[in-house]
Amino acid sequence: MENQIPRIIIGRLPLYLRALIRLKKDSYEYASSHELGKLLDISAAQIRKDLSHFGELGKRGKGYEIDFLISKLNQILNTEDVWKMIVIGAGDLGSGLTRYKGFLNRGFNVSAIFDKDPQKIGRKIGNLVVKDIQEMYQYVKDNEIKIAVLAIPAEYAQDVIDDLVNAGITAILNYAPIYIKTPEGVQIEHIDPAVHLQKLSYFIK
Amino acid sequence: MENQIPRIIIGRLPLYLRALIRLKKDSYEYASSHELGKLLDISAAQIRKDLSHFGELGKRGKGYEIDFLISKLNQILNTEDVWKMIVIGAGDLGSGLTRYKGFLNRGFNVSAIFDKDPQKIGRKIGNLVVKDIQEMYQYVKDNEIKIAVLAIPAEYAQDVIDDLVNAGITAILNYAPIYIKTPEGVQIEHIDPAVHLQKLSYFIK
Repeated sequence: MENQIPRIIIGRLPLYLRALIRLKKDSYEYASSHELGKLLDISAAQIRKDLSHFGELGKRGKGYEIDFLISKLNQILNTEDVWKMIVIGAGDLGSGLTRYKGFLNRGFNVSAIFDKDPQKIGRKIGNLVVKDIQEMYQYVKDNEIKIAVLAIPAEYAQDVIDDLVNAGITAILNYAPIYIKTPEGVQIEHIDPAVHLQKLSYFIK
Repeated sequence: MENQIPRIIIGRLPLYLRALIRLKKDSYEYASSHELGKLLDISAAQIRKDLSHFGELGKRGKGYEIDFLISKLNQILNTEDVWKMIVIGAGDLGSGLTRYKGFLNRGFNVSAIFDKDPQKIGRKIGNLVVKDIQEMYQYVKDNEIKIAVLAIPAEYAQDVIDDLVNAGITAILNYAPIYIKTPEGVQIEHIDPAVHLQKLSYFIK
């Protein structure tokens, strides 16, 4: 049944989770949909409607119990355990993502980073040593990796994605500034900061 | 009149621009809404409707002339010239963004990077030297900077945003994993890779 929930709702759940963790840090025990809405700039009605897809999660008059809702959202989003993921591309972006400490407490851990450039292979980034992209296929198989982060130039992206999918990757976070085709059953999310900047510059007077 | 165009449409224009630049690189002269749609996974009808807000941009039977539409979109998006922008936070992410070469040909150039950590101030990143955050206010004033990229931990983000806005920043690309309040007239876009990863992990079986 949860399979039929629109992607746009699924896309908001991580925002709710992030806001709840924030409130918990600030020692709140309960959060109303109004409080969450204010933190997120989303209407309280929308939040109640989104969450109602997953059962009766709130208590009338008290709102949502924060610990309970955090654990419920982690369960829904499949982030109760930590996913191992790989980074492709050991340039500035790939290196930065590999060293980034903010993934672990949100369910993700970079377990390997790959590049094809002999200058980069063998270099240390955080606790990891950059591996040859030739080893990627076997590594993904052996470690049952499902998630890859793509931080390579646009012109190589489609070929690498095909290789990732062949190896067993089913979820891709793509930083290459290009739209990419993925087969059915493979999920892809795109991050392109220039797209956001161009949207911002439209509004500058 | 263009002011009344919904944000969601403005948000798609950079995607159209990116796809057109791709097609131009591949030596195409014209692009139909169908070709663009296939590249972007957006319906041809949607693309035609979005672009029709800005006049008669296509030619019946031939589609859009790529050079013309690229220049028109750059004009609409205010990216005909290069915007100077500043990066706040010289950690892994801020450093990676500062060195990133993909902004310049899309209308943006990091002209300064700031941090408050004495260990980081004075360090060289690409062609820039990390400046003390104390100098930010004067720098933004003197150089009439409008755009800032925020790559700092969530707990400092709101204070820094207030300072940026006081200095004259009106557009913020925020990487801090938190929702932030900005005054009327200040635009903010958020990038949080963990949010995208959590959306992906929902779909992993």
